[in-house]
Amino acid sequence: MPLLTRIRGPRDLDRLSLEQLDQLAEEIRTFLVEAVSKTGGHLGPNLGVVELTIALHRVFESPNDKVLWDTGHQSYVHKLLTGRQDFSKLKMKGGLSGYPSQAESEHDIIENSHASTVLGWADGLAKANQLRKRGDHVVAVIGDGALTGGMAWEALNNIADAKDRPLVIVVNDNERSYAPTIGGLANHLATLRTTEGYERFLARTKEVLERTPVVGKPLFDTLHGAKKGFKDFIAPQGMFEDLGLKYVGPIDGHDIEALESALARAKRFGGPVIVHCLTEKGRGYQPALLDEADRFHAVGKIHPDTGLPIASSGADWTSVFGEEMVKLGMERKDIVAITAAMLQPVGLEKFAKAFPERVFDVGIAEQHGAVSAAGLATGGLHPVFAVYATFLNRAFDQVLMDVALHKCGVTFVLDRAGITGTDGASHNGMWDMSILQVVPGLRLAAPRDADQVRAQLREAVEVKDAPTVVRFSKGAVGPAVPAVGRIGGMDVLREPGTDTPDVLLVSVGALAPMCLEIADLLDKQGISATVVDPRWVKPVDEAMAPLAEQHRVVVTVEDNSRVGGVGSAVAQALRDAGVDVPLRDFGIPPRFLDHASRAEVMAEIGLTAPDIARQVTGLVSKLDGRFDQVDSVEPARD
Amino acid sequence: MPLLTRIRGPRDLDRLSLEQLDQLAEEIRTFLVEAVSKTGGHLGPNLGVVELTIALHRVFESPNDKVLWDTGHQSYVHKLLTGRQDFSKLKMKGGLSGYPSQAESEHDIIENSHASTVLGWADGLAKANQLRKRGDHVVAVIGDGALTGGMAWEALNNIADAKDRPLVIVVNDNERSYAPTIGGLANHLATLRTTEGYERFLARTKEVLERTPVVGKPLFDTLHGAKKGFKDFIAPQGMFEDLGLKYVGPIDGHDIEALESALARAKRFGGPVIVHCLTEKGRGYQPALLDEADRFHAVGKIHPDTGLPIASSGADWTSVFGEEMVKLGMERKDIVAITAAMLQPVGLEKFAKAFPERVFDVGIAEQHGAVSAAGLATGGLHPVFAVYATFLNRAFDQVLMDVALHKCGVTFVLDRAGITGTDGASHNGMWDMSILQVVPGLRLAAPRDADQVRAQLREAVEVKDAPTVVRFSKGAVGPAVPAVGRIGGMDVLREPGTDTPDVLLVSVGALAPMCLEIADLLDKQGISATVVDPRWVKPVDEAMAPLAEQHRVVVTVEDNSRVGGVGSAVAQALRDAGVDVPLRDFGIPPRFLDHASRAEVMAEIGLTAPDIARQVTGLVSKLDGRFDQVDSVEPARD
Repeated sequence: MPLLTRIRGPRDLDRLSLEQLDQLAEEIRTFLVEAVSKTGGHLGPNLGVVELTIALHRVFESPNDKVLWDTGHQSYVHKLLTGRQDFSKLKMKGGLSGYPSQAESEHDIIENSHASTVLGWADGLAKANQLRKRGDHVVAVIGDGALTGGMAWEALNNIADAKDRPLVIVVNDNERSYAPTIGGLANHLATLRTTEGYERFLARTKEVLERTPVVGKPLFDTLHGAKKGFKDFIAPQGMFEDLGLKYVGPIDGHDIEALESALARAKRFGGPVIVHCLTEKGRGYQPALLDEADRFHAVGKIHPDTGLPIASSGADWTSVFGEEMVKLGMERKDIVAITAAMLQPVGLEKFAKAFPERVFDVGIAEQHGAVSAAGLATGGLHPVFAVYATFLNRAFDQVLMDVALHKCGVTFVLDRAGITGTDGASHNGMWDMSILQVVPGLRLAAPRDADQVRAQLREAVEVKDAPTVVRFSKGAVGPAVPAVGRIGGMDVLREPGTDTPDVLLVSVGALAPMCLEIADLLDKQGISATVVDPRWVKPVDEAMAPLAEQHRVVVTVEDNSRVGGVGSAVAQALRDAGVDVPLRDFGIPPRFLDHASRAEVMAEIGLTAPDIARQVTGLVSKLDGRFDQVDSVEPARD
Repeated sequence: MPLLTRIRGPRDLDRLSLEQLDQLAEEIRTFLVEAVSKTGGHLGPNLGVVELTIALHRVFESPNDKVLWDTGHQSYVHKLLTGRQDFSKLKMKGGLSGYPSQAESEHDIIENSHASTVLGWADGLAKANQLRKRGDHVVAVIGDGALTGGMAWEALNNIADAKDRPLVIVVNDNERSYAPTIGGLANHLATLRTTEGYERFLARTKEVLERTPVVGKPLFDTLHGAKKGFKDFIAPQGMFEDLGLKYVGPIDGHDIEALESALARAKRFGGPVIVHCLTEKGRGYQPALLDEADRFHAVGKIHPDTGLPIASSGADWTSVFGEEMVKLGMERKDIVAITAAMLQPVGLEKFAKAFPERVFDVGIAEQHGAVSAAGLATGGLHPVFAVYATFLNRAFDQVLMDVALHKCGVTFVLDRAGITGTDGASHNGMWDMSILQVVPGLRLAAPRDADQVRAQLREAVEVKDAPTVVRFSKGAVGPAVPAVGRIGGMDVLREPGTDTPDVLLVSVGALAPMCLEIADLLDKQGISATVVDPRWVKPVDEAMAPLAEQHRVVVTVEDNSRVGGVGSAVAQALRDAGVDVPLRDFGIPPRFLDHASRAEVMAEIGLTAPDIARQVTGLVSKLDGRFDQVDSVEPARD
């Protein structure tokens, strides 16, 4: 890598010739395939933006000019050009984040990995520049997929409102986000792609009119009669200019010279301008280009030459759900599925193959996923909206106001719930069991193993008059955890072995094995514990309070924020029943979590069996009057 | 009202002549002005849709065909034509809802009064019709303002994707939602409004080309060279057709015959189609037309002839905030304001007059409001986003991921927090203090009186590295409630008058007078109580646990959902500190609340001083071993 290793910052690009820039692009591609093969990461998107990123950093002067990425998973090349070339621990504890990170570099702004936010950020930054009379530039790179999100529309509408506020929007159009982009916008972008570009078209039309002066005039008048400028009538660029945004493009996103020319023009323009770049996801890497599904959007560790995964994992939560959906689809014609541009990652591929007309990919549009589900339910169907837990935050209002208020039977399946780890702060699904608590009528299941995923999904789709939620973790599903009894609707996972038990351990979802381990550790301290899995954590089972009253301490353990989660709900149910048994709730502290493996994160926040057992032992000792060491729980304050 | 009173259902419209329909429209306008003058309500929007509603119900066959309204506040005429003509108790307990209501009529579908949802509902219903092979129609009426919301965009993108799925979208374009519609979309709609309409334009252009055969051909070829159809090049309808939606319009929204013709064509079309109707908000009512600000969008009781309010209220929370903002704006150049299409209702009018370049109306786009605020803050400014509490739900993900994760100093001012009453389920601001609890670093203030609004707003805008929230109620602000002491950061509102107090009463925001009344009632039972106002309810003050430990019972009272609210946060803070004093939390039960006055709703849910005092007395008696009557708290289950 003779060129790449000499790039310490964006300005080092200035002295390279065009030939050298092309060579640099090749070096970067080689680097990316080798590095990401070893660690896993977002390979395809970054292979697509190599030339674009080089051109951006040649034309704009980061960090004074703000270069923003939507989503941040396409920022690897940006990292390489801004002084970060050690990818050996990408997404691992202590290594580079998989997204931009303010802690890593002054060249990074938006750490968020939720899509469609960049234009809103850019609008705010551009307004601040204008008010503060700063001449810095703001350039936002957004994928065509992210443009399907409503926030992008809201932002475009605002950006177009101020003709004198400079802002460069680069549409990175690779015809696919996670999967091929869908909807009217995709069709429109396709139209733009096949045009010759505005400037050439304008020149040719003028030529024709000049050749025919007699007719040029009446035609011009006719066009003009509609009171729009001449340009608007013949320009094929469509909706962007209709909104009032200057459109430049389409540009070959792998031609550095063309990109620099277009970006330089856009930079000089003095108002909001869209630069439409056509790129190829997975560019230059044969295994990616052959993968029609998602062009190696995100990969685990792979062999760099073949692109084949090095280790294949066993059964995971997602596929258990996906297979049961196919069975349900065969049994019930009314079941339909919804995904927000993530058909494969949420496990709906098989359902889509079996029932292509019964699956709806709404784009990166969680709000629409939820609202259209309310419409589908009102129309007599039972929609199952499968979505990452962290992305359901986008549709909170719609779950509450459209689905719950209207008593619609809609099932939300939350994948990647709890701590997911390596994708960092914004991909942990750690808020769902808190915010969904407030939704009237909503029932929430946290299955503990594969059998429970299947069983609770089936229970969920039976509910016709309220939203239901089934949430599970990321990755491999553990072994079955059998019930040894049943109290109310709750599974007993372990009997205390005494008539006067000390601790009621309330286990939530995938943490069942950990809770059994805690009980064993307590047992060694002479503390007897009952372990129950409520299965449905909302509403709190009516048998909970009477059961709690038979114990001296209640302990809840959940893979969710401690604040307002299952522990708080159980505590409130006990208060409402007048049961004032002391309770301690264990979960995720209310702060953002840095990227690291799931196990590392859990160890760091004390969500492990030994940590919890030690604290519970301390509490019981205190109640016994034996004042042993009591660790303080990481408080819910922040 | 010789015609109106004979309309029992939509089909009664079928036998009326055009002249009679015009007369009916006049009768309806007279009825609306008289009825809404007496009760208050959304007058202007409904005066604008009289003819449109008549035409819709002539062309479509509700309830088999689904007629959907966005937002529902423009459904009064729809109510009159579907058997509901008693408006005497509009928005009052037992009377008609101010929005569509499934409980009222089979003709009503969407009860939700949050904007921009209708196209998502329509998409879901249309998909269900198609899958179930039903020939019913779906027609969605959406205001131009609601089109600025991102959900509308997400839905349009999906609707345009299926060319064979019938769905009629009526854009009710009155150039203003609450206030004049802003942004690129508004400009585009204005362009469409001033065109002659597609059909007439097409005819004239063809005529010109036919008159000039020699040139028609090369020009046509040039146009055709861009590989789009001829029609697309000369049609001025722009972005809707760019997305793949058939466009019909613009139509005079007060010409019943023209409306019926356009709607009938749209109904026959067999795919997604937009009918663009131009209406006049406040049509036919002189006081509304003279009101440039919002054309009598929503009014209290008014004199029907003059439109002047009958009773003027005293100082309200909103204006206290609005006036302090002007002072802050003069003191600090970095303070800017954001509103989501509600400049006047959230009290920012004076700020906008004083600092026009420092206020940003983003449209009905709460997501963009929050994200652009993160950008503004990162750009060196301090944004204050003033928004109804219920609408912040729309921006939960952005508050969490964009503002909080990036440690941006943004202040959210939540107006109409708590029970608002007459606007029904979707306008109560009863979730904010629950869902915001999970946001790391966020600080939340609930001022109890006007002085505290001013003081806490000032404290909020001092915070530079985290989101801050100031939430207050709707309507008149009560008298000042002085502090008699201070413990930690908490105001003591009442000392217990004994060294061994029984009850610690934690008062939240505007409920301070009620809490003082509770303390007085307890006093009469021989129960001593301390009353504190934490002022900042998140994070829980560090002095809370030590103070609680000096009491036998802790009682929290808040104007927010009981689930996950301040009570739950205090309870968790006590648990974390190892303080196991019994706690009882009073607030709003986890169900949707029917429309009624604020006082009526509070009485119904038991959020009154006597109710709470009785329950607390019961609890203390139980602790004393005196087992008097203990009412059960309405549980947090649902």
